[in-house]
Amino acid sequence: MEVIALKGLPLVKRGDRIDELIVHALEEQNLRLEDGDVVVVAQSIVSKAEGRVVDLRTIEPSRRARKLVGQLDKDPREVEVILQQSKEIVRLKHVLIARTEHGFVCANAGVDHSNVWDEHVTLLPKDPDASARQIRDGIKRAVGVDVAVIVSDTQGRPFRCGAVGVAVGVAGIKPLLDMRGRRDLYGKELKTTITSPADALAATAVAVMGEANEGTPVIIIKGAVYERGFGSARDLVMPLERDLFR
Amino acid sequence: MEVIALKGLPLVKRGDRIDELIVHALEEQNLRLEDGDVVVVAQSIVSKAEGRVVDLRTIEPSRRARKLVGQLDKDPREVEVILQQSKEIVRLKHVLIARTEHGFVCANAGVDHSNVWDEHVTLLPKDPDASARQIRDGIKRAVGVDVAVIVSDTQGRPFRCGAVGVAVGVAGIKPLLDMRGRRDLYGKELKTTITSPADALAATAVAVMGEANEGTPVIIIKGAVYERGFGSARDLVMPLERDLFR
Repeated sequence: MEVIALKGLPLVKRGDRIDELIVHALEEQNLRLEDGDVVVVAQSIVSKAEGRVVDLRTIEPSRRARKLVGQLDKDPREVEVILQQSKEIVRLKHVLIARTEHGFVCANAGVDHSNVWDEHVTLLPKDPDASARQIRDGIKRAVGVDVAVIVSDTQGRPFRCGAVGVAVGVAGIKPLLDMRGRRDLYGKELKTTITSPADALAATAVAVMGEANEGTPVIIIKGAVYERGFGSARDLVMPLERDLFR
Repeated sequence: MEVIALKGLPLVKRGDRIDELIVHALEEQNLRLEDGDVVVVAQSIVSKAEGRVVDLRTIEPSRRARKLVGQLDKDPREVEVILQQSKEIVRLKHVLIARTEHGFVCANAGVDHSNVWDEHVTLLPKDPDASARQIRDGIKRAVGVDVAVIVSDTQGRPFRCGAVGVAVGVAGIKPLLDMRGRRDLYGKELKTTITSPADALAATAVAVMGEANEGTPVIIIKGAVYERGFGSARDLVMPLERDLFR
């Protein structure tokens, strides 16, 4: 498996077509996409291209947001945006862990003040699977190859320190790999019957992006092991009734 | 970054020296390790080499284990071993999530019946950092290069479906990357100030191993971004007082 940072992408602004920027940068870098390659795109540039950016100067923090400021050590206007993006607050203690409209459980409901202009924050894309699909379709039209696209975010995790990349949008890849019924070398049932190639590939890519990820927010992975097909990054969210940690 | 599955490893048995098996397989595959390469080794073969395997026929399940069998759909002897490996039961509902002696929080306290002989289970290595160190030192002696070694396990996660690889032992790599004080392209503070290269690289490797991982339980990663140094995979465990999800 080969993991390549795509260099030479310009700073992304509202209305930019990520697929076109990728195709152009690929040409510049003399890189050729092949069938089955995985293209991982950082959420930050997808959100910017889609205008999912909020100017904090337009935000009037509610009473509730003001109340939380002391606990969260954040700009009250940012807290207000976080509350607006939260469908349910899962934990609140120094950090705010929320369930977003998409169903993701993450810190600050995915609202991010890094890698964007001063006094602005990015929101997660409205429909990150659709964002991934659009990039995939655009690449297919431009260079005629079928790739998988993953929109990645960097997120903290319960029980373990240090954030890692996860998939928040997918296209052309089954996010989960179901190995029920497969056997190990000894003919025994596998311990782990369902794995998440989409999250593993997002973790791989984000480790190469670095966190100051406006630098190389697009990563190409060649030779990855995954099943082609469709699905949603929402499939990666543990259903409420099966979530032991709510 | 390049991720290469090491082929040609024999089935590992008690007393085998993993470092020697790796060096031999590298020669066979005509692969050369370089300074800074990362060698990821599946827990299953480390445990086997170290004799961390339990023959279930020697286990007499306790009353407590028998009581849990209905809930866990497992062999009562396996449940007994899981209880013995658990320092604290964190959740118990269809699956048993435990804190191990190392401090890891994982399903079945790391006890695994796959990728091992019938009627046997593997335990996590007693001191997985020491296991990683031993492999690292052995490789250094044999081929004279400084590599990082990660002992990986496949684990499920709260909130997200599908297991991914994580690091349970490390040597020659700082498991966490602290970016506090660094700035993004706009001069702003980074959202995520601490990431986990060790877990990201473990996720990468495990995605390439596949889960029937006795096939390619060793993965070589070239060109990875990480900080050299020492630390413990225990640093990846969220301290109790900072764990919002206990």
